[in-house]
Amino acid sequence: MQNFTFYSPTYFMFGKDTENRAGELVKRFGGSKVLIVYGGGSVVRSGLLDRVKKSLEAEDLSFLELGGVKPNPRSGLVYEGIDLSKKESVDFVLAVGGGSTIDTSKAIAAGVLYDGNFWDFYSGKRIEKALPVGTILTIAAAGSEGSPDSVITNENGMYKRGASGDAIRPRFSILNPALTQTLPPYQTAAGITDILAHLHERYLTNTKDVEVTDRLIEGLMLTMIHEAPRVIADPDNYEARANIMWAGMMAHNNSCGVGRTQDWNSHNIEHELSALYDCAHGAGLAVTMPAVFKYVYKHDVMRFAKLAVRVWGCQMDFDDPEATALAGIRALENFLRSIGMPLTFAEIGAKEEDIPKLVQTLCYGDGRKGSISGFVTLNEEDCTNIYRLML
Amino acid sequence: MQNFTFYSPTYFMFGKDTENRAGELVKRFGGSKVLIVYGGGSVVRSGLLDRVKKSLEAEDLSFLELGGVKPNPRSGLVYEGIDLSKKESVDFVLAVGGGSTIDTSKAIAAGVLYDGNFWDFYSGKRIEKALPVGTILTIAAAGSEGSPDSVITNENGMYKRGASGDAIRPRFSILNPALTQTLPPYQTAAGITDILAHLHERYLTNTKDVEVTDRLIEGLMLTMIHEAPRVIADPDNYEARANIMWAGMMAHNNSCGVGRTQDWNSHNIEHELSALYDCAHGAGLAVTMPAVFKYVYKHDVMRFAKLAVRVWGCQMDFDDPEATALAGIRALENFLRSIGMPLTFAEIGAKEEDIPKLVQTLCYGDGRKGSISGFVTLNEEDCTNIYRLML
Repeated sequence: MQNFTFYSPTYFMFGKDTENRAGELVKRFGGSKVLIVYGGGSVVRSGLLDRVKKSLEAEDLSFLELGGVKPNPRSGLVYEGIDLSKKESVDFVLAVGGGSTIDTSKAIAAGVLYDGNFWDFYSGKRIEKALPVGTILTIAAAGSEGSPDSVITNENGMYKRGASGDAIRPRFSILNPALTQTLPPYQTAAGITDILAHLHERYLTNTKDVEVTDRLIEGLMLTMIHEAPRVIADPDNYEARANIMWAGMMAHNNSCGVGRTQDWNSHNIEHELSALYDCAHGAGLAVTMPAVFKYVYKHDVMRFAKLAVRVWGCQMDFDDPEATALAGIRALENFLRSIGMPLTFAEIGAKEEDIPKLVQTLCYGDGRKGSISGFVTLNEEDCTNIYRLML
Repeated sequence: MQNFTFYSPTYFMFGKDTENRAGELVKRFGGSKVLIVYGGGSVVRSGLLDRVKKSLEAEDLSFLELGGVKPNPRSGLVYEGIDLSKKESVDFVLAVGGGSTIDTSKAIAAGVLYDGNFWDFYSGKRIEKALPVGTILTIAAAGSEGSPDSVITNENGMYKRGASGDAIRPRFSILNPALTQTLPPYQTAAGITDILAHLHERYLTNTKDVEVTDRLIEGLMLTMIHEAPRVIADPDNYEARANIMWAGMMAHNNSCGVGRTQDWNSHNIEHELSALYDCAHGAGLAVTMPAVFKYVYKHDVMRFAKLAVRVWGCQMDFDDPEATALAGIRALENFLRSIGMPLTFAEIGAKEEDIPKLVQTLCYGDGRKGSISGFVTLNEEDCTNIYRLML
């Protein structure tokens, strides 16, 4: 196991009606003038935004609003949020929404306390300070409610990049599974896929002898495989939603990923797709993951065989472990298809002729030098081959 | 799933040589005058205490020492630590040792800021404030390095009780698996048993539909079953030690126990044994757990069958699930025996004729009203029967 540090000081409040405690928690974590960040329709239509505002008012907190966050959130709204927060002396950022809203809020919180261009953080500079952020989660997916990460699309070139720093870990996150019951099935499935991807990115490691985190990751994968069909069949199933929601947080707060190298190539390869075609990030991952795994499994056949046996219930073929590894990847594809996710370029509106452009941005964008690294280092040719496997 | 809150803000620094960062971390978390709490021999002999002091000196921190913590730590030393800390205006308590040392440090930290008798916290009063505590862990066992709990033996009557409160969660914990390589095999095994007990206490729930935490607990149990024989065969195995150490923290910081009722009857029943006979807590748990499980498994046969199949690799007997449940309990016994743990009263020096006295303290001590509650509520007769199963 590698040396590591782990620090996850987010206060989680989980369960029914917990959004009504937002005001109390903002106050507890030092907020007095709050920027509420959200997307659009459903948060307003469902009455959630009103309940949150009422909860802030009950604690005599003042607030202003910044709506309009879109999936695959963009840099433009971040600049707007930073300007607004500076002008109005905001001291707390409250995200009401999913990963895009939370990531936008984190970017604003970091940008307000930084004199330069906030994009510096998304080009490799570590975030050292930020306004406190709180979240009220409306979809189990990104894990941003418990992570030190944020991903934003730069509109100047349409590419996605990530930033990190303990300073942007939410001070509190309110997780009410009931808020996710109204999600359309496709979004629920895309969220489930994103969670599975966070687990795979950690599972694919080059560090030997990390049984504890292997087992924790496998346990979370098994949970997702068990709960996904239940929630797709019955969107109102609170218990299934609750299991998925806690799994989504645990999948990404890194308690299950410590002390080991991680992959993140599927995410890197996918980010180009959702940046360019604006598909759901989870849907893009459903297309990307099997292609990446088919391309790289020979790097460590036994790791893929372990995944196939322990998680997908495949029988180990002791004469041909490679067959077991491939059976596991097929089981993943079948699972993704069963919950309504796409598996091909065409299904997310991606085009074969764009592959050179995708590879160019992926391998050279924003300071990269011709390859991406992870479980396996992939150069231009590798990435081209992987995108072609998605056709 | 039940509503819950989860808050684990401890900063974990994990890996080789990390004890040399103690000074830096004490400073980061606001300490300037430190009370170093430790047990005896090995911490001094191994040079660990000297390295820690050197690390504090390098940061110009002043400190005083309180040695002499014993396993099954006692109230007397806590009073001494509180008096000393008040007199010397200590502002940080640094535990160098295992669960007993950490629990003593937590009790001192809470007692210093409390005008009454610190034992109030161990009689049901919640701890709301405490001096900051840091830990340098020397045995993977109690999980106190990441928990809000502390257990102390009251010398006035020789009984053990627990206290809780987020205020006593360590601000930082340094986890260097190499520090555990010199432990005698019996202590290593007792630590492993304690970790397994923390997992069982959470697994035995009356809350339905909590797959995510079931799977996480099972994953940690499987890790312990895999790593235990490796470390017993080769005490210097750093990797096995590392897996066990992180599992021990995760088993007890409650990320795997949220949203569900828990048991804790094995711990309650054991506490009387280690308080009276001064056996290792883990050894007492090895004697206690199988007896409790044999007595209560009929309360939920399928839960015990699930544990048997998923964790102990038993084949499910679909015609007779009860047989599967019992096979799992036998597998636990075999495992405990294989790592050198006792299974009977005689092996820990306990005496049949003391059973009435044990039951009396267990069921009536410190305000209890004739029973203990958990997975199953157990009255005097039940507890007598359970102790008799250990003969």
